[in-house]
This record gives sequence, structure tokens and C-alpha cells, in this order.
Amino acid sequence: MLIVQKFGGSSVRDAERIRNVARTIAETFLLGHDVVVVLSAQGDTTDDLLEKAAELNPNPSKRELDMLLTTGEQQSVALMAMCLESMDLPVVSLTGWQVGIRTNSAYGFARIRRVATERLRRELDQHRIVLVTGFQGVNKFDDYTTLGRGGSDTTAVALAAALHADRCQIFTDVEGVYTADPRKVPAARKLGEITYDEMLELASMGAQVLMNRSVELAKRYGVELEVLSSLVRAPGTKVKEVAKRMEEMKITGIAKDEKVARITVEKIADKPGSAFKVLNAVAKAGVNVDIIIQSTGRDGTTDMSFVVADTDIDKAHAALSERSEAIGFERVTVDKEIAKVSVVGAGMMSSLEVASLVFEALNDAHINIQMISTSEIKISCVIEQSAADRAVAAIHGKFFEA
Amino acid sequence: MLIVQKFGGSSVRDAERIRNVARTIAETFLLGHDVVVVLSAQGDTTDDLLEKAAELNPNPSKRELDMLLTTGEQQSVALMAMCLESMDLPVVSLTGWQVGIRTNSAYGFARIRRVATERLRRELDQHRIVLVTGFQGVNKFDDYTTLGRGGSDTTAVALAAALHADRCQIFTDVEGVYTADPRKVPAARKLGEITYDEMLELASMGAQVLMNRSVELAKRYGVELEVLSSLVRAPGTKVKEVAKRMEEMKITGIAKDEKVARITVEKIADKPGSAFKVLNAVAKAGVNVDIIIQSTGRDGTTDMSFVVADTDIDKAHAALSERSEAIGFERVTVDKEIAKVSVVGAGMMSSLEVASLVFEALNDAHINIQMISTSEIKISCVIEQSAADRAVAAIHGKFFEA
Repeated sequence: MLIVQKFGGSSVRDAERIRNVARTIAETFLLGHDVVVVLSAQGDTTDDLLEKAAELNPNPSKRELDMLLTTGEQQSVALMAMCLESMDLPVVSLTGWQVGIRTNSAYGFARIRRVATERLRRELDQHRIVLVTGFQGVNKFDDYTTLGRGGSDTTAVALAAALHADRCQIFTDVEGVYTADPRKVPAARKLGEITYDEMLELASMGAQVLMNRSVELAKRYGVELEVLSSLVRAPGTKVKEVAKRMEEMKITGIAKDEKVARITVEKIADKPGSAFKVLNAVAKAGVNVDIIIQSTGRDGTTDMSFVVADTDIDKAHAALSERSEAIGFERVTVDKEIAKVSVVGAGMMSSLEVASLVFEALNDAHINIQMISTSEIKISCVIEQSAADRAVAAIHGKFFEA
Repeated sequence: MLIVQKFGGSSVRDAERIRNVARTIAETFLLGHDVVVVLSAQGDTTDDLLEKAAELNPNPSKRELDMLLTTGEQQSVALMAMCLESMDLPVVSLTGWQVGIRTNSAYGFARIRRVATERLRRELDQHRIVLVTGFQGVNKFDDYTTLGRGGSDTTAVALAAALHADRCQIFTDVEGVYTADPRKVPAARKLGEITYDEMLELASMGAQVLMNRSVELAKRYGVELEVLSSLVRAPGTKVKEVAKRMEEMKITGIAKDEKVARITVEKIADKPGSAFKVLNAVAKAGVNVDIIIQSTGRDGTTDMSFVVADTDIDKAHAALSERSEAIGFERVTVDKEIAKVSVVGAGMMSSLEVASLVFEALNDAHINIQMISTSEIKISCVIEQSAADRAVAAIHGKFFEA
């Protein structure tokens, strides 16, 4: 089999962790598999480099920043290669340039355009373990680019797709994807399999296991992912097109996101286009909104509420405040003390029972639902933040512990 | 003018030093020159990386070591670029690969084969300051290679040669080339000009201003070098084919090397080929020898002494000891308490006066000459180590302070 393995920065942060990862790689290789390994920069390397840069220039060009940051992964693969050499294993490390990972020119958040396989195949044919720098490529000018957050996952999936790998294993500091955060819900179960879409919904709902871009790429190219622990030897969670699951399990997982706020625009003049203008002003400020509700008051005005990420509060507030007269509304309020609890499961809406069980669970726990939205495979509820953990536990109990 | 400037690791070791170098570069650029800058890795970066490597593998492959080490210069050029950007100057940083510095495959001490100029010219045409990683290139496999000690100087000279630069300035932590070590000989004078050959002799005699490879390359391509300080604004020393100098100055400089030892092979059987066998045994052990003297005793045996570098003592001793019977000699002794003092000057041997003045100076100072060797432009004397500084001062006084 041809297996692509990816290890993140915390998995290679020091010599001990590197040796630990090397043993995992060695085991796979000695079972007779072809192994391609993608590594991130060690632990704090990227932050240290950013600090050095900030000392010289608070606002450096993204091109030079990428030139600086790509050294982190290059150090990781060279050090890992040396460690594997010390175990007498044949190994070669390659940068994104050497592999031929070509990207567009969006420095700092580049998209992969093409992955050459000649060099990879040549090294694999010589029966070598191939280590590849994650997170980076080169653009048409032969300049270094980085792929942005979660970029190493994306590199791993792109290599797996280009090589038609049999497996793409993403090693993380968790053991897989759970029905809920196991640190908060002791009864949380590790899922054996999950669909791409479910993973996407869980990720965007706050379960930070895989970045969406890598999952989307895996879905597009049909790369079967496995999320597993770099520290504990145990089967992880497979992410694939069609997931097998126990018959009675109607939902896949429960996630919560506390890094959100509700913005309410009050007393919008009830004229055609007002609602559009509100959302347009926010969108033009580069803010993504989620779960929009609108209510009509008795005085002929309407209120509109929506959810934004914590980091976008100021941008959204400013964009709206300065247009209050132009759009025609009275004021904007912000509530940061909220949380979004989401229940994810493929085919959920075919079962009204799921929705009613969620409502019942929250009702039993005396938790008020402020906002709600549903999609094909997801129900999200906005509740007060202090009740978030209780809400997750209550829903988990209803579905998994009955 | 097109000017190539090179700054070493200590010149860019922290933000303050980087800003200082940036000002020097900016001044040159703002005078209207085209500027190509070669940088080494910051201060201790290379040592830190080597330490990390040693923790994982005491004997890593040179290929992976080069993969690791080349990140150091890449960080330097990126950081310097950001600093120059903060001064609103147009700048671009390039790695050896991006420039097209092609080397052979001798990882760790690669030789430059070819320097492409297309990218460099394109960036210069756009009126940008071009920063290039020193010490590195890529080989025919597209793998990273390093050039070994003093590699950044070599990079600078190679770029100057390829671009037909008008000047190649090597910025160091000394102000130029002196007639003797100015820390030891207060009357030492900075030389305005010096020939390539004189520089080569001074360098190999222990004056660590420029590595020989870069001087040889400069000589071959007729690149005029200037050695000057990165901290003090003052004219440095020019290294060129024909040097102008004051008429009375018969010698160029005096250097001492204390990192040497004398090995004496005693009572060699006086048979044809014995001397050859001694030197052959040492050469086969990979040891370079210097200043060989042979003396014949009254008993029909001979003694042979030669000078080796401190680091080669054990290798030389072992190589000889295990062949004492095969070669036919009695024993090997080592004297580490010696120093080699060298007097360098073009056309020196045309003047017997120079040699006699050296002998006179040492005689006046009551310093015994143990061994002596002369070449076209050099006289080296082996003396006891404790007298080395006195010897340099005595010779300097004779030639420069009369």
C-alpha cells in the first residue's frame, strides 16, 4: 500500500517527539508499505519566526513572510530524516519546491494548483521513505508560498490525491473524532467512520480536528482520511464518502463554539431592501454571518439578529454603525455571552425525531434556545454561553446514553 | 555601478545589527548603484541547528545536514528584506536555488559550477535591492548543497564574477587587512591594497580575514575585492592583481599560527625510500604537512620533522606509529608548544635583504628559529610558542617602525 502520513507541529516539537514519530513511520515502512510523510514546523518555530519579523517590520510583505516561514518545515523534514537515518532506514527529505507543489500567488494563503509526482515516484521506487514539507509550495515566479492555517493537512491530502494513495493518515493530538468533546462529556464515544460532509459541519461548528480546506479537497478527490493520535496507538476515525454506523445512531456528533457573538440590528425601517442592505454592509466588511433571524415588531419596524465570529465583532459593528441613517435603523447591540451548540448527522432532516429530541433535551435541562438554524445534516442552536457544556451533555445523553 | 556586498553571520546576528547593515545597503542603493547583497545565517543559527541534529543523529548524512543548514541563510535574507521594506526600499530576497547557483554534489563542501544571471538581472532591472542566501546552491538532482567554511564569501565572489560587478565588498568584523594582528601589535598598519597571492599566503598563515577559496575564485575571474568593517565606516583593504604600495615596504604582513605542532620521526633507517614512506603514510591518513626538514645523524640514521595542524596530530601519530617496523624508524615525538610566524610580501625572494632582516629581528629578540621554509612570497619560521607574539612584534618593528 501507498500511505501518506501527516504529523503536526506539536508531534515534532522536540527530539523526543521526533523519535516517537520516527517509530510510527518506521513501523509502517517495515510492514512493506510505501510511505510519504508530511510534516509541519516544530512546535513554536513559526511563532518565533513571526516574532523576529515583527521586531524588524510590523507589516512585512507576505512574500518575504512566506520566504521566512517556509524554513520551519524544511528544518522539520531534515531533522526527521536524520532521526530515521540513525535507525538505518532509507529516507529522503524534500521541500515543496523539490516535489513540485505549484500554487497560485496568494502569499500566506495560497491554493495548490498542481502536484508533480515524478520526483516522489522516483524516490519511492528506490524504496525510500519520503518526507515532504507541509504548508508550502512555489508559485509561477518560483517564489515560496504558504497555504495558510491547516496547510499541512492540505498538503497531505493533495499528495495522497496526486499519488492515488491508499490511505491518508492525519496524526493529531486527539485520538479521532468524537460524538462530543471527551474532555467535557465523559460518555463521548470515538466514531469509527464519518462522512466528509459531517466532518465539514463538525469542523465549522468548532471541533478543531481537521481544517475544512483539507476535508473539501479530500472529498473532491475521494481521498479517504484517517484521523488518529500521534501518541496513543489506537484506530482513529475514518472520513469517507459513505460512513458505516450503528443503526440506531441518528447523529454523528455534538460540537460547541463559544467564540461567537450575536449582533442585533434594532428597529429597521420596514421598507423593501432594508434587510438586504444590512447584510450587504456586513458582507462588504468581509464578515461571514450565520443563523440569521428576523422578527417584526408591532410598530412596523423589524429587528434582525445574526451570529458572527468573535474576531469579526468590531468590523461588523463599525460597518453597520456608520450606515445607520443610510440603511435606516435605530441601533446595533452585541451579545458576546452566547454559544452555538450544533448537532451533526447525515440525513438528519429526514427524521423529525432528531430535532424534537434536541429540543426536548434542552427543555429538560431548562436551557432557553435563542436562535436556531437547520441544514441537511445539522441543527445549530444559540444559547447563553454559561449553559453550553450542560447543553452538550444533555443532548449527548439523549442520543448516546439512553 | 553594480556592487556586490557580503555580510557575515555576526553582522546580522540580531535586529539591531540587521538594521545597521540595512542602513549600509540603503546608503549604497540610494547613491544610485545596483546592489546585490549576500548574507550568512544569523550569529549562532548554524550552531543551534547542528546541535539539534546531533541530538537525533551523531552522524547524519551530509545531504540532510545541508537541507537543514540552508534554512539559516534563507531566514537572514527574508528578515533583511523585511527590514529594508520598513525603510520603504524596493527589495527581493532569493535563495541559491531561485538565483540558479548550481553546484556539484559534494554535500557540505560543494563547488559552484554555474551561476545563472537571468533572475538577478530581471530583479535589478526592476530597480530592486537583491538579497541572496550565501553558502548554498543546488546540485543536478535539485538537492540543496552548502559550500563549506567561508562559503558566503565564495557566493559573493561568484555572483560578482557572473554579473561582472564593478565591486565586491566583503564586510567583516575587522577594518581590513593589517601588516600584523592589530590587537597584538599596536603599530600594525591597515593595508590599502594587497595582491591576491599575498592575501592567499596571509590567509593560509592564520590571518582569518578571507577564506582561500573565495580569494582564489576572485583571482581567477579578476574580481576586485574590498575587505571592510560592517561596524566602522572607513575604507578597507582592496585585494587585486597588482597592488600599489609605498616604495619602501618590502613585505605586506606578518601572521602567526599557534594551532600547529611539530612531529619528529626519529632514527629512520638510512635506506632508499624511507623518507618517502614516512610522508606517504601521513598523506594516506589525510594529513597535510608543511615545512619538512631532515637531518642526518652520525649513526647512519636520519630524523625527519614536519609541521601539521593541531587537529591532525592524532591521525598523523597513529598512522606513523603503526608502521614503525614496516618503514623502519625508532619513534615518533610530538611538540605542541610551537608557533609558525610568517612574513608575506610579493617578490620577497628577489630581496635577500628581507630574509636577513627577519633573521636579524629574531636574533635581536633572542628567539631561536627551529625550522624555516621559504616560497616566492613568504618566509615561515617555526619558533617556540611562548615567543610568538614577541617574534611578530620584533619583525614588525624591523620592517614598519624603523
